[in-house]
Amino acid sequence: MNYMQDLNKSFMLEALAQAELAFNNHEVPVGAIIVENGQIIARAYNQNLKLKDPTAHAEILAIREACQIKDSAKLNNCDIFVTLEPCAMCLSAISYARIRRIYFGAYDQKFGAVESNPLFSLKDLAMFKSEIYSGINSQQSINILKKFFELRRNNKP
Amino acid sequence: MNYMQDLNKSFMLEALAQAELAFNNHEVPVGAIIVENGQIIARAYNQNLKLKDPTAHAEILAIREACQIKDSAKLNNCDIFVTLEPCAMCLSAISYARIRRIYFGAYDQKFGAVESNPLFSLKDLAMFKSEIYSGINSQQSINILKKFFELRRNNKP
Repeated sequence: MNYMQDLNKSFMLEALAQAELAFNNHEVPVGAIIVENGQIIARAYNQNLKLKDPTAHAEILAIREACQIKDSAKLNNCDIFVTLEPCAMCLSAISYARIRRIYFGAYDQKFGAVESNPLFSLKDLAMFKSEIYSGINSQQSINILKKFFELRRNNKP
Repeated sequence: MNYMQDLNKSFMLEALAQAELAFNNHEVPVGAIIVENGQIIARAYNQNLKLKDPTAHAEILAIREACQIKDSAKLNNCDIFVTLEPCAMCLSAISYARIRRIYFGAYDQKFGAVESNPLFSLKDLAMFKSEIYSGINSQQSINILKKFFELRRNNKP
């Protein structure tokens, strides 16, 4: 493993720490961080339940936070690390924010809009210019999601 | 024209009034309203520039406002009226919010994710269950968008 791969895995561990926070708050455990010049500038986890906001996915919250910090709707030199393949909503937002690189963990066969869905692959559209790196620390992301959905199934009345 | 068509056109005029507000604030003129039981519960217009938020499309802001009012991340019995065909981000958010019906004005050949794009049509996915009605008061929506982009082109340095 080279230095960059090592660094990217360590950033993904920070995103996984956010997913842990989501898990501890009974939210679907997905976490995201935004990195600029090797520094984390925003961290977020899925908060659909707490915020009562269907758009409050980890990526959207991280992008909105980073934009406030940068005082700009564009994050041109930033990269996003997210524990799960972004959905169509989040991938669009990543594209509108002009995020340079997307690093994601697990593939999402149901909602993934980057590579997993046979019906569409938004990354093939001209508007999507981010570079994409997938499958980083994916097993850890899968594990926490599995644990969450198993618990939810078992706790159903 | 029957009563329902008349009512829908008058709701779309309310969405167009929001697009006018966007225009007056130098934002891309798109407006949206959310209706429940014949009452408007949220109104919003595109505010990417003012909020410095790439996710601040009219639909997203209207959904977030309606969810706060309803104190719920779900808007099951609500309809959305939006002056322009929703993009992939907004159509996903509409779906996550479980909005019942989507009424939109003009088609968007570039970003429209409902019907306009030959590469993908998110409405064909199982996750999208909203009914869709398109082309309502579309000429008024096209006119204000044209006016906006013409002005922007002419004002470029």
